[in-house]
Amino acid sequence: MADQPNRDQAPGTPPEGSPTAAQFAAIIPAAGSGQRLGAGIPKALVTVAGRPLLGHAVAAVLAGGHVGGVVLVAPPGLEEEVAAVGAAAAGGVPVTVVPGGTTRDQSVAAGLAAVGGDVRFVLVHDAARALVPEPVVAAVVAALLAGAQAVVPGLPVTDTIRAVDADGRSRTLDRAALRAVQTPQGFPLSVLRAAHEFRRAHPDLAVTDDAGLAEALGVAVTLVPGDPQAMKVTTGLDLALAEVILRRRTEEAQ
Amino acid sequence: MADQPNRDQAPGTPPEGSPTAAQFAAIIPAAGSGQRLGAGIPKALVTVAGRPLLGHAVAAVLAGGHVGGVVLVAPPGLEEEVAAVGAAAAGGVPVTVVPGGTTRDQSVAAGLAAVGGDVRFVLVHDAARALVPEPVVAAVVAALLAGAQAVVPGLPVTDTIRAVDADGRSRTLDRAALRAVQTPQGFPLSVLRAAHEFRRAHPDLAVTDDAGLAEALGVAVTLVPGDPQAMKVTTGLDLALAEVILRRRTEEAQ
Repeated sequence: MADQPNRDQAPGTPPEGSPTAAQFAAIIPAAGSGQRLGAGIPKALVTVAGRPLLGHAVAAVLAGGHVGGVVLVAPPGLEEEVAAVGAAAAGGVPVTVVPGGTTRDQSVAAGLAAVGGDVRFVLVHDAARALVPEPVVAAVVAALLAGAQAVVPGLPVTDTIRAVDADGRSRTLDRAALRAVQTPQGFPLSVLRAAHEFRRAHPDLAVTDDAGLAEALGVAVTLVPGDPQAMKVTTGLDLALAEVILRRRTEEAQ
Repeated sequence: MADQPNRDQAPGTPPEGSPTAAQFAAIIPAAGSGQRLGAGIPKALVTVAGRPLLGHAVAAVLAGGHVGGVVLVAPPGLEEEVAAVGAAAAGGVPVTVVPGGTTRDQSVAAGLAAVGGDVRFVLVHDAARALVPEPVVAAVVAALLAGAQAVVPGLPVTDTIRAVDADGRSRTLDRAALRAVQTPQGFPLSVLRAAHEFRRAHPDLAVTDDAGLAEALGVAVTLVPGDPQAMKVTTGLDLALAEVILRRRTEEAQ
């Protein structure tokens, strides 16, 4: 994995907003239970280096000043806790909190319903990708401003990947053509709303992210460079790695 | 990633060899320059928790007592250093050192040429997957003894994976069918020798691992469960994660 520190990303102190920030909202679904992290609390509220994962995620999405508002989707019943974490990390950027559904798609849809005003573009970001470096967010924003209809960060795949057939046999895929997809994923608001209406009409659709939904609608998906540090924090080992990344960033900033 | 410690794997102290150990040799290609790790030395000789990666890899492959001999493929000119690392980690299991080629395939072929005696099965293991837990090695060995002709550890893929087309568009692959391939990969000696002869006859073949070569010969590839801790140690961040994993194992063992 890459280990370049991100000097732009001082947690909690987003720079001045960009001229287009009012057009961008971020939706962060954080309603997952995160059972693999243990700790008996939702994954997004697990603390790394003194701050909940969700707080890191909010600060990371806002670090470049590209986003003018955040919608956090909370585990039902924990809206107040989530709002407090969001406010502490957002550095004055408005934060809206809504209760989530039973699936990630339902939670994103709940967040979408709370987006309004002058918003033209939406970034959907996994709370678990709490340490996404700012240049990844900037690249998604830039692609949207350039006219892309669906944008995902993608990272070259370092392992050989095999596809298993129905009969249990497997075959190697062409690794050079593969990208591991990260977040934030970006869309014009109208595209993401259409994608989630399509989802409601097709509940059995086998897609695992918002770009997959947009793709099912026939929208072309644009890839921008991802970053190893935008990995999902899912297990205790990931938490330990996140602590290492944050410690390095702090050391680099000094 | 999973974070179960592996209590069976006390570095440097392999248990009694199994009755079939004499039939198994491990080839560990360690000739790569590993420039991403910096440090000005070959990747396999970079130290983690007081021991070179290669030493961890040798101990990991031998931990279960399934393997009766090791062939290390060294960066040309560093055969003595590699032999010393291997001997320190092998706990009395015979270690052979040969100089590597300019590609990984050439290095594996050089290792293959040094395998002899009663060996019927070969495990090829990346030195960079230095912390592979013992149950992964045991599963590969068991599949070979059960008659498999090519065995690879595979791990479910946690990220959504997209395939990029020649025209730059991308499409989502069915994640449920994907496995990230790790090592050790296991083969009957005759199969791996045939695969590498095939490689010599087809130098332009776009394959990234030994199982891919066997597959090109028409051999069916069997998947056994991999482990997140068998990740490739490639960057400084991976080294930091490796230190965390080893610290946890030590704490668990006390």
